[in-house]
Amino acid sequence: MSFDNVYEALTGDGDARWAFGTGFTDPLAGVETAVPPGVDRADLTAYCLMLGDDALVMSHRLQEWCTNAPDLEEEVALANIALDLLGQARLLYARAGHADGTGRGEDHYAFFRGEEEFAGVRLVETPRGDFGDLIAKLLVFSTWRLALLQRLIPSRDPVLAAIAAKGVKEVAYHRDHAARWTVRLGDGTDESHRRMQAGLDRIWPLVAELFTPHEAEVRSARSGVGADPADLRAEFDAVLDQVLTAATLRRPDVPPDPGGRRGLHTGALGLLLAELQSVARAHPEATW
Amino acid sequence: MSFDNVYEALTGDGDARWAFGTGFTDPLAGVETAVPPGVDRADLTAYCLMLGDDALVMSHRLQEWCTNAPDLEEEVALANIALDLLGQARLLYARAGHADGTGRGEDHYAFFRGEEEFAGVRLVETPRGDFGDLIAKLLVFSTWRLALLQRLIPSRDPVLAAIAAKGVKEVAYHRDHAARWTVRLGDGTDESHRRMQAGLDRIWPLVAELFTPHEAEVRSARSGVGADPADLRAEFDAVLDQVLTAATLRRPDVPPDPGGRRGLHTGALGLLLAELQSVARAHPEATW
Repeated sequence: MSFDNVYEALTGDGDARWAFGTGFTDPLAGVETAVPPGVDRADLTAYCLMLGDDALVMSHRLQEWCTNAPDLEEEVALANIALDLLGQARLLYARAGHADGTGRGEDHYAFFRGEEEFAGVRLVETPRGDFGDLIAKLLVFSTWRLALLQRLIPSRDPVLAAIAAKGVKEVAYHRDHAARWTVRLGDGTDESHRRMQAGLDRIWPLVAELFTPHEAEVRSARSGVGADPADLRAEFDAVLDQVLTAATLRRPDVPPDPGGRRGLHTGALGLLLAELQSVARAHPEATW
Repeated sequence: MSFDNVYEALTGDGDARWAFGTGFTDPLAGVETAVPPGVDRADLTAYCLMLGDDALVMSHRLQEWCTNAPDLEEEVALANIALDLLGQARLLYARAGHADGTGRGEDHYAFFRGEEEFAGVRLVETPRGDFGDLIAKLLVFSTWRLALLQRLIPSRDPVLAAIAAKGVKEVAYHRDHAARWTVRLGDGTDESHRRMQAGLDRIWPLVAELFTPHEAEVRSARSGVGADPADLRAEFDAVLDQVLTAATLRRPDVPPDPGGRRGLHTGALGLLLAELQSVARAHPEATW
């Protein structure tokens, strides 16, 4: 199988893969999906799920802007970005299903895993926030992801390589879109500048995690399948510096301490507090 | 006000502060609570809330063992540890209420703050798990907290100093209790050894956070009010090494990457997935 064939299979005409729903045909149907000799199947599975989860959760957050964007054109732009990322998630989940040998389809990974089985970075989970929060998150996410996907184009796994080659074109547009908005808001009114800076400040404690490798990422990079996220930092910083300078914004000076002390808790705390606080909140004036 | 008076006020006879409920009288009633000159009120408030939140959430997790402990004696022991920590939380919240000048009582901090306002470490949130998980968490938590409280005894804030002096006696017992169980389980049967090691392995990614200072902790340490958690690591490691060696357990070799890639997500992901997955889980066989 040549790289060109897989890429063409993913990008050819008649491609109707990007709709919402379940029970679709395998987005990699017709593609040669044998895992190359010497590639660790467990690591390839884990790696595809990590990148797929990043895309799915980011896509979902972007979809929350439908009917909420500042104008109709932006509405369509955000929906298209969300659909691009949903498509990336579908391809990556399909690849994981082949690599792990279970034949499980994309639906399994998206709909039937628990929170603790999701391996996406925490950045993409952060609540919707205002438009400044959105643009800050999209700028950081797409700058990081573009640098990552570019390094996967020569991957030893031809399917991952093709998914990356397709994704690079998409995410390059996402990054450009976010960068233009960043400059427009940062170099705009006092209020838009303030909100854009606040959006950056709020997500910055979660930026360090993007460059902190998991073992499966390190092993995937060593075997020529994936990329070590630690290697992406210099490119990320250079791009961000350029955009932030043009936007008259400053790079946030927030230490990478993305833990409980800053209010970033695990999902377990919300459930615990729901129980702990339920009676007091139902009867705020009562004593017992 | 002398240090001894506050300490005696906290530990004197007729002390009925440790029950559950709401609307109690101020646990610091009768104590001189003026904030010493030169002590930053905002930092003192934040610092007391951090230590109070650690204690409250840990206490709640321990209470979940009521009716679930392996025997009645252990049931009582765990309940007593939970009550000690609840008492520490109450005193620390009361101190925060004085320091922030709002006069808000402990109920406000415990019951009427959102998840994102809680500043406890994520270690204490982790779900109950099995008895090995509990003992691993209690060993790590009490070793860390004892080292911390010992450094607060000479605090420039006499109330915090008194709370720490009282707490040291309590947490020294908690640590001893956890260490004895660790040795008994680790050096016990194959099954108890396996579970004790698994409990340590599961919480270890969250240990690094205990020693990662927040700015308010650093400033509190510099001003002689608090302690920098980074300074506690050597003592923590020495105690853990001693206990783990006696228990024939190994120190986990898990990198400190306590983020989304390892399934440790923010509370926002659970809510997002609940929506994203709801239809597919309600109708697992359907396609649409």
